[in-house]
Amino acid sequence: MAEVLKASTPDDWRPLDPENTIYVELAMGRVVIELAPEFAPLHVENVKALAREHYFDGLAIVRVQDNYVVQWADPNAENPQLARKPKTAKKSLSAEFDRDFDTKIPFERLPDGDLYADEVGFSGGFPIARDRHRGKMWLVHGYGMVGAGRDVAANSGGGTEIYVVIGNAPRHLDRNVSLFGRVVQGMELLSSLPRGTREMGFYAKPQEHVPIKSIRVAADVPVAERSNLEIMRTDTPRFQELIESRRNRREEWFQRPAGRIEINSVPIPVRVK
Amino acid sequence: MAEVLKASTPDDWRPLDPENTIYVELAMGRVVIELAPEFAPLHVENVKALAREHYFDGLAIVRVQDNYVVQWADPNAENPQLARKPKTAKKSLSAEFDRDFDTKIPFERLPDGDLYADEVGFSGGFPIARDRHRGKMWLVHGYGMVGAGRDVAANSGGGTEIYVVIGNAPRHLDRNVSLFGRVVQGMELLSSLPRGTREMGFYAKPQEHVPIKSIRVAADVPVAERSNLEIMRTDTPRFQELIESRRNRREEWFQRPAGRIEINSVPIPVRVK
Repeated sequence: MAEVLKASTPDDWRPLDPENTIYVELAMGRVVIELAPEFAPLHVENVKALAREHYFDGLAIVRVQDNYVVQWADPNAENPQLARKPKTAKKSLSAEFDRDFDTKIPFERLPDGDLYADEVGFSGGFPIARDRHRGKMWLVHGYGMVGAGRDVAANSGGGTEIYVVIGNAPRHLDRNVSLFGRVVQGMELLSSLPRGTREMGFYAKPQEHVPIKSIRVAADVPVAERSNLEIMRTDTPRFQELIESRRNRREEWFQRPAGRIEINSVPIPVRVK
Repeated sequence: MAEVLKASTPDDWRPLDPENTIYVELAMGRVVIELAPEFAPLHVENVKALAREHYFDGLAIVRVQDNYVVQWADPNAENPQLARKPKTAKKSLSAEFDRDFDTKIPFERLPDGDLYADEVGFSGGFPIARDRHRGKMWLVHGYGMVGAGRDVAANSGGGTEIYVVIGNAPRHLDRNVSLFGRVVQGMELLSSLPRGTREMGFYAKPQEHVPIKSIRVAADVPVAERSNLEIMRTDTPRFQELIESRRNRREEWFQRPAGRIEINSVPIPVRVK
């Protein structure tokens, strides 16, 4: 992989679009999330609206379930008196568990198939699955994927509660939750948090909550304060080289290259510009 | 899954064998590892011998690589003057990347196949893969699996450096490292450690190292101080029920049961006796 990165040219990389990037500011640092408007336009719009009305500022990470998810929310969500209410943004939205199949949406197919879907691959830097027969495509769950928590009703989520996958890909959640983005920097700030001891990994005491200082749309942050990141494009021959370098590891250390790769084992390189 | 656990009878559970269980004692608590002598007899024997000569006591976790592994070792391993030397145990062993196919070894096949191997399933509580054509079977990498770190030579490992998987299943390591056990309790103590900032997740400074107080074979620990755990047996109709309850989640929350499951998404329940 180091060789592939070294051989890469400026065309193999793309900047993040500041209008489709959000920064989650924690005491320990910044988590950078790229949003996926092609797959969850309503949720992306609403999360940006929530960020722009400072809905998240002062809320907290309330749940860290080992090998599963980190989740932030309003700690007072269940208290009608204290619960924070969105102003212009919405509290809940129609589900965006998948979207209609569209051949105009880029798709670079992974060669080795998938256990859960007809085909998987990458689209604009996101891991996705497609089902031609059912005419649907969707973002797939894996490390760093970002989704909207919801209650039992499919349309009860909307982005006021957000979770990030920190464990082995929970693919059983695919098409059950509206995924709308992916963490491209700062995962280790979330994955190393103390696990919650209550059921489902909720923190037992309010003092354990990890405060969210703010969530901002990158476009609203002064240029000098933005994270100047570039993501490797997933629609290039270079990315195919990278996939091949991971399917068949040629480093001397490997005795038996796998000859195969599953979607969540493909890294998408990020670099500081 | 709660229903399956509730319906379970004493016969669905087994105790850990104290002679094939080790305790890793950290300041934060105990990590319990079940050893797999059927798959890595030399490594299991040697790790027990190392524990019994107190080789690990005072060593440290020196590497925590996000979405990959935690690793402990002698921080002075590269310094011939200071490096700790095994007394009766061995420094390195023949590789045990896989073992000969044997139909006498229990195997409960998972129904949905695997992307990396001919077939996968469970054997005595461990996730394994089999290849009849090549006549081999092996432990597969996934969350909590424990292996012997090695250098480039296949026979350069032996259990003096041990890693535990804390990320998405790194299946490309299958048959490249000698796996010899699985963490059955205490994973959250390892997975929530601060990530190392040096290459490959090594800690940058010795002060960051996380001390290993001791590693003991459970049989050598006074009965009153043992972790009294039971593991759900994987060779029972009950475990098949559990797998089915995870393949097709029937909780009201799920809109679309996956209808499939991959090996590392099957939990193996543990309970305090």
